[in-house]
Amino acid sequence: MKLSVEKIIEQNQKWLETHEAAYNFLAEKLEKNGTDVEHILKKLKDLQVAIPSWALGAGGTRFGRFSYKGEPATLEGKISDVGLLHSLTQSAGAISLHIPWDIPEDANAIKEFAASLGIEFDAVNSNTFQDQPRMKKSYRFGSLCNSDPSVRELAIQHNLDVINIGEKLGSKSLTVWLADGSNFPGQHNFQEALQNTRDSLQHIYKSIRDDWKLFIEYKPYEPNFYSTVIQDWGTSLMLAEACGDRAYTLVDLGHHLPNTNIEQIVATLMMKGKLGGFHFNDSKYGDDDLTVGSIKPYALFLIWNELVYGMEHNKNNPSPAWMIDASHNIKDPLEDLLQSLEAIQIAHAQALLVDQNALREAQKQQDVVLCQEILQDAYRTDVRPLLREARLQSNAAIEPIATYRALDVRNQIIKERGLHSVASGL
Amino acid sequence: MKLSVEKIIEQNQKWLETHEAAYNFLAEKLEKNGTDVEHILKKLKDLQVAIPSWALGAGGTRFGRFSYKGEPATLEGKISDVGLLHSLTQSAGAISLHIPWDIPEDANAIKEFAASLGIEFDAVNSNTFQDQPRMKKSYRFGSLCNSDPSVRELAIQHNLDVINIGEKLGSKSLTVWLADGSNFPGQHNFQEALQNTRDSLQHIYKSIRDDWKLFIEYKPYEPNFYSTVIQDWGTSLMLAEACGDRAYTLVDLGHHLPNTNIEQIVATLMMKGKLGGFHFNDSKYGDDDLTVGSIKPYALFLIWNELVYGMEHNKNNPSPAWMIDASHNIKDPLEDLLQSLEAIQIAHAQALLVDQNALREAQKQQDVVLCQEILQDAYRTDVRPLLREARLQSNAAIEPIATYRALDVRNQIIKERGLHSVASGL
Amino acid sequence: MKLSVEKIIEQNQKWLETHEAAYNFLAEKLEKNGTDVEHILKKLKDLQVAIPSWALGAGGTRFGRFSYKGEPATLEGKISDVGLLHSLTQSAGAISLHIPWDIPEDANAIKEFAASLGIEFDAVNSNTFQDQPRMKKSYRFGSLCNSDPSVRELAIQHNLDVINIGEKLGSKSLTVWLADGSNFPGQHNFQEALQNTRDSLQHIYKSIRDDWKLFIEYKPYEPNFYSTVIQDWGTSLMLAEACGDRAYTLVDLGHHLPNTNIEQIVATLMMKGKLGGFHFNDSKYGDDDLTVGSIKPYALFLIWNELVYGMEHNKNNPSPAWMIDASHNIKDPLEDLLQSLEAIQIAHAQALLVDQNALREAQKQQDVVLCQEILQDAYRTDVRPLLREARLQSNAAIEPIATYRALDVRNQIIKERGLHSVASGL
Amino acid sequence: MKLSVEKIIEQNQKWLETHEAAYNFLAEKLEKNGTDVEHILKKLKDLQVAIPSWALGAGGTRFGRFSYKGEPATLEGKISDVGLLHSLTQSAGAISLHIPWDIPEDANAIKEFAASLGIEFDAVNSNTFQDQPRMKKSYRFGSLCNSDPSVRELAIQHNLDVINIGEKLGSKSLTVWLADGSNFPGQHNFQEALQNTRDSLQHIYKSIRDDWKLFIEYKPYEPNFYSTVIQDWGTSLMLAEACGDRAYTLVDLGHHLPNTNIEQIVATLMMKGKLGGFHFNDSKYGDDDLTVGSIKPYALFLIWNELVYGMEHNKNNPSPAWMIDASHNIKDPLEDLLQSLEAIQIAHAQALLVDQNALREAQKQQDVVLCQEILQDAYRTDVRPLLREARLQSNAAIEPIATYRALDVRNQIIKERGLHSVASGL
Repeated sequence: MKLSVEKIIEQNQKWLETHEAAYNFLAEKLEKNGTDVEHILKKLKDLQVAIPSWALGAGGTRFGRFSYKGEPATLEGKISDVGLLHSLTQSAGAISLHIPWDIPEDANAIKEFAASLGIEFDAVNSNTFQDQPRMKKSYRFGSLCNSDPSVRELAIQHNLDVINIGEKLGSKSLTVWLADGSNFPGQHNFQEALQNTRDSLQHIYKSIRDDWKLFIEYKPYEPNFYSTVIQDWGTSLMLAEACGDRAYTLVDLGHHLPNTNIEQIVATLMMKGKLGGFHFNDSKYGDDDLTVGSIKPYALFLIWNELVYGMEHNKNNPSPAWMIDASHNIKDPLEDLLQSLEAIQIAHAQALLVDQNALREAQKQQDVVLCQEILQDAYRTDVRPLLREARLQSNAAIEPIATYRALDVRNQIIKERGLHSVASGL
Repeated sequence: MKLSVEKIIEQNQKWLETHEAAYNFLAEKLEKNGTDVEHILKKLKDLQVAIPSWALGAGGTRFGRFSYKGEPATLEGKISDVGLLHSLTQSAGAISLHIPWDIPEDANAIKEFAASLGIEFDAVNSNTFQDQPRMKKSYRFGSLCNSDPSVRELAIQHNLDVINIGEKLGSKSLTVWLADGSNFPGQHNFQEALQNTRDSLQHIYKSIRDDWKLFIEYKPYEPNFYSTVIQDWGTSLMLAEACGDRAYTLVDLGHHLPNTNIEQIVATLMMKGKLGGFHFNDSKYGDDDLTVGSIKPYALFLIWNELVYGMEHNKNNPSPAWMIDASHNIKDPLEDLLQSLEAIQIAHAQALLVDQNALREAQKQQDVVLCQEILQDAYRTDVRPLLREARLQSNAAIEPIATYRALDVRNQIIKERGLHSVASGL
Repeated sequence: MKLSVEKIIEQNQKWLETHEAAYNFLAEKLEKNGTDVEHILKKLKDLQVAIPSWALGAGGTRFGRFSYKGEPATLEGKISDVGLLHSLTQSAGAISLHIPWDIPEDANAIKEFAASLGIEFDAVNSNTFQDQPRMKKSYRFGSLCNSDPSVRELAIQHNLDVINIGEKLGSKSLTVWLADGSNFPGQHNFQEALQNTRDSLQHIYKSIRDDWKLFIEYKPYEPNFYSTVIQDWGTSLMLAEACGDRAYTLVDLGHHLPNTNIEQIVATLMMKGKLGGFHFNDSKYGDDDLTVGSIKPYALFLIWNELVYGMEHNKNNPSPAWMIDASHNIKDPLEDLLQSLEAIQIAHAQALLVDQNALREAQKQQDVVLCQEILQDAYRTDVRPLLREARLQSNAAIEPIATYRALDVRNQIIKERGLHSVASGL
Repeated sequence: MKLSVEKIIEQNQKWLETHEAAYNFLAEKLEKNGTDVEHILKKLKDLQVAIPSWALGAGGTRFGRFSYKGEPATLEGKISDVGLLHSLTQSAGAISLHIPWDIPEDANAIKEFAASLGIEFDAVNSNTFQDQPRMKKSYRFGSLCNSDPSVRELAIQHNLDVINIGEKLGSKSLTVWLADGSNFPGQHNFQEALQNTRDSLQHIYKSIRDDWKLFIEYKPYEPNFYSTVIQDWGTSLMLAEACGDRAYTLVDLGHHLPNTNIEQIVATLMMKGKLGGFHFNDSKYGDDDLTVGSIKPYALFLIWNELVYGMEHNKNNPSPAWMIDASHNIKDPLEDLLQSLEAIQIAHAQALLVDQNALREAQKQQDVVLCQEILQDAYRTDVRPLLREARLQSNAAIEPIATYRALDVRNQIIKERGLHSVASGL
């Protein structure tokens, strides 16, 4: 199903008057304080966050999974769902495919279909953490790190296949997330596992085209519970540097030990020009993959504050690839993604509101109270009118979730796909 | 030094116009949605948070301490500082003393002086974690838990002395925080240490008057690094129940293991009618004692959401004693406390904004998306105009920190006390 | 398949001489120091640890599962596997069933089959964290805590059914582990969820026979990632006390926040007479469910030290029900369980070696160095000869894993069941 | 005071017979299994662990400090205490000084005195986390990272002074531990703080002689509680590489976030040839600075397993500088250090026992059960007879703590220094 601009504009009428009053009041106040509101609106409108193809169905845990209604059982269905999100927000203009769950039979047709919805193909993701039917070797004991060279070859070849698919669709980057690690002390020779991984990544890196990037993700634990080969940003950066200029570190918010200062990692990586990609989600305990901003919205703002700063000051760092990587275990996946998109843009807008000149001056004066006041003033501002205005100007929905509900989208999807349609892949 | 109402009102003129526009806009919007703004203002004005006497000087770490300028070297000085905070906010109308750091020589005179500033005496705090000069026994291996009965007696007697001082000042509760614990496996017999602590607390409990309460604090670690006798709320509650009806658990935000869901503990304790006191601060790693709301403001809001709910629904639970328990290592302590008071009231106001009826209905419908939207709508609202209005109506400062700076308070304090005046106590 | 005593005794010959020399040397040394070696051997022989029926196949994570070879596809197969473990160790004489994964078609026949292998039926486990085919209601939003009374009724009835099955098999206890909780702030009304859970448990408790016990498990997170209704021992104890005398708390080693002092919880629960059951496993990050003793063997010893102390001193506490609750993701499940049994008995033996009198005296003297020396002396002793002797005396294998491999057990199982046999249940 | 070899040998008679029986039994068993016991003894005898000068007095927490009896009030006293430890163990043949707490008035005399006790001067440690009397600038807001260049210059100059002192004493390395960081979001510009730190370290690095090394320590938090400039090994390595070949990372066991896999970090750093120094201690919650091996002895063994492997295979990595960095809050500091030395050597010996060839083969076969068995077999071996034999052969004490107590060393120290002598420095 597809949402027409007309329907969205029609819905917007409900909130238009209230919105305009709130927006005008806020914009006036901000401009009085020297904020360039138009600049912020432009930034909000420009930001496009990729939706991963595996996020359109319900996720689960090792204890089971509760399917949602009308999940997309095909790649077209997934793209169509991203199209809905994009229509409602004009900020979800890309999809990130997971291979082998989303191999297109006819790449050109898929590409055209996506283009018709305004959707591009972001980074492609390889999967060497699960065995596929008819595989001759198993990833049980790792893939790119495996002490068995024939398994490493299999995993390298899989990545090359993924690149090949990505090229056909117009992707420009490969994201490698490795589950490789060990469950017990002694299982791995750490140095060998790391060297094997480095060699394998270098092999893959050599195969990507000059206009492609390689993103190397890190994670401290899960699904291995003693060690992970690429356990932290330091290891990822080491590997990226061992590959070359177009290899970068990818930060996933959930992939950190308790209490990690992630915003500082972001700052360090951007200073080095090596922050390539960013996966949004939220968590309280581990890699919980909850809705963005649902647990620690202030931390998200602090991270965005570094991202905004880095995009302005670290010209050697490319514009990061943005993606939501959450698991929608109990909510309607589309509503959940709308909540995530909203949270990302709120933190983005708050970060754009930070008076960077005043902050630098307060830092110089070592006026810690004032530094905090400046950040909190931006954070405490209710920036939702800015988001609504950006969407309004883009013909998206002032209120995406309310519009989604008012237009009864889920039920129409169910009608099309059936109640028990199950998302392909995980 | 003392701040006159006139000076504050004079300063308020600077922000009056801007404030009124913002307040009116917000109030109108909220009332349109059915919110009783007057009710919220009343709640904000009613809330009084105690300032601990040890918070008026700079705190430190085991690696050292950087003194601040013009710290109060006497109890009068500390009360005077709280008076400044109260003048600026009208929400810091109490002080919580720490014995033996703050033993008044003339209790009546101190009481009158405090009253002249609108300051009451909140819970008194005993100290059995440090040895005092000329003590015959040492708390090195614990106090109320000590396997040596003569040390336990000393610690019990100290608590009785503290109660006695508190009675003279008009306090109505005793807070017991115990550092008691062990640094190494084997050091303690856990069961005996717990039983000794229970017996000691029962002894103390029997000595408090009928209109007093006993607050039992818990903490998982520090200054002992293997075990703490009262390690969690479960142990505290067990002890409070072993004492009697007027013994309660006290929650300090920093006293939890990583990732603890504190708001759930609050809800459980209020359901049991056993949440007696609450210590505010913030932290990223451990008991960091940072400015309230400076790290995890959303968690603070969620906690306030339970507090507001419990104060409404759990009539068996008394109104908790509120206190800020932070350590001001690098900021002007008074400015730091103003930031903490602001953060507490922001979270309080946001919690008061939660549409409880809509939330209950959404919970009943198991509409998780809507539940989250309702909480986040309250949280994302910029409630600062409500705080400013509450202060304005109370003849406090619209902008406490800016007023404090405009009136050059710190320099006047330094003039009175000297640059190198050092706070008594820790 | 079944292992005859003769085959095991035959294998034992390989190690007999070496073992006897080592055992005699150790026993002599210990007895010289006043240790009653016979008493320790008796304790080791008496301890029987239940194997859960879900542990005989490979476990997995949310990222997938790698099946092992020759997993038991039937309840008989599972019991048969436990029989192998018991033959090899004489310390795995019980199985703990999971309903509905293990509903026996003919309870009497199953009971007889188990008895023929020396296997009893330990606690039965209910499952209200997954929906079963043809269920009319869903546990998606919880079971015993659900705000929908019809779901609560379903979950209560399921527990009654489980009790019924357990009674037929000779079980004497029900273990309730609830996944109930919430993924997002606002989803739950904490107080209502807890009250519903309490009411449901009371209902179940009333239905168990006088010679049965109810074990209430707690867990801070997973599969819900914001809150769990029974989040900690304090909540579990509160619920057990609300049920009655035969309701107890069950401790699972993996169900704690980072850095929790579990041995102290054990001591507190035994002091209250409320430690009913114990689930062994090990973990580095969360509920990793790794082989017992593979990550933190000293913590395991410290826990055993409290268990041994409590079983000696807390006569009001019943003998806890022991179970291994690990997940065997990459090892042969039977070898993994043999490693777990070994680790449990090693820690048990070390704890039995602790000179309790000397420890109490050192504690009394507050000689912390000596307290630590006493515990570490026991821990640093190589107690494996004691385990081997206990097994030898019981006609079990001196070296269980080596014997299992020498007898080529796994290949014989594969021959019986086929390579791709998959365990029923999770 | 000084312990003569004769007295120690005399004490050794008590344990000689028992020791020899135990040693012979173990050595025979090990050699039968192909272990080169002489090689292990040599390694144990060769290992020398530096004692930091600040560890000879009682440590404390921010809540206070309980002094121990007869603490060394002078540098000579500290060296003398290290001499006692070295006499008792022959494995504490170095002291690590902390400047400005330990500035020698007469470097040559101090050097000679130390030499007379067999004590060398290990790495010197600078202190830029505390202000000293009469300092014109403050480190309140950082030192090498400070946004004020004049504070950076002061801190750099202090490090140059420390190098100068170290050169006079024969030290060959400088350890830089920085408390630099921030307590609140916004306080620091992360990128600038890191760049300032890099520039300052490069300046210091240029000033060290060709035969010196620079060790850069990292720590995630404390005494700053929001961010630390050198927060992890990745940042430390980046800075070491920015300085040059003789700059290295220093690992302190307590300086990690919860659940960090430290042994993997060790392996990575040794692979890079960049592990320069190692600080031993133990902890349950944070940087608890407890006795080595008192909480997580298996983790210590796993770390030693990587250290032994790396020293064998990573010839590009220099032999790390070993030091104990613990805080002795409630024990006799000398007894505490003896316990730490014992724990280090136990883990070292266990690691030397690991059958590396069998382990590599099991890893190659991906026989995870066997990998674990190999490590645990080494760990479960009671290696204390090897330590005792190594000490016996070196004319040190078979039982250091018992000898220390039998010779009544502490009381003799108290006689010399007085009961209330307080250690200089922190």
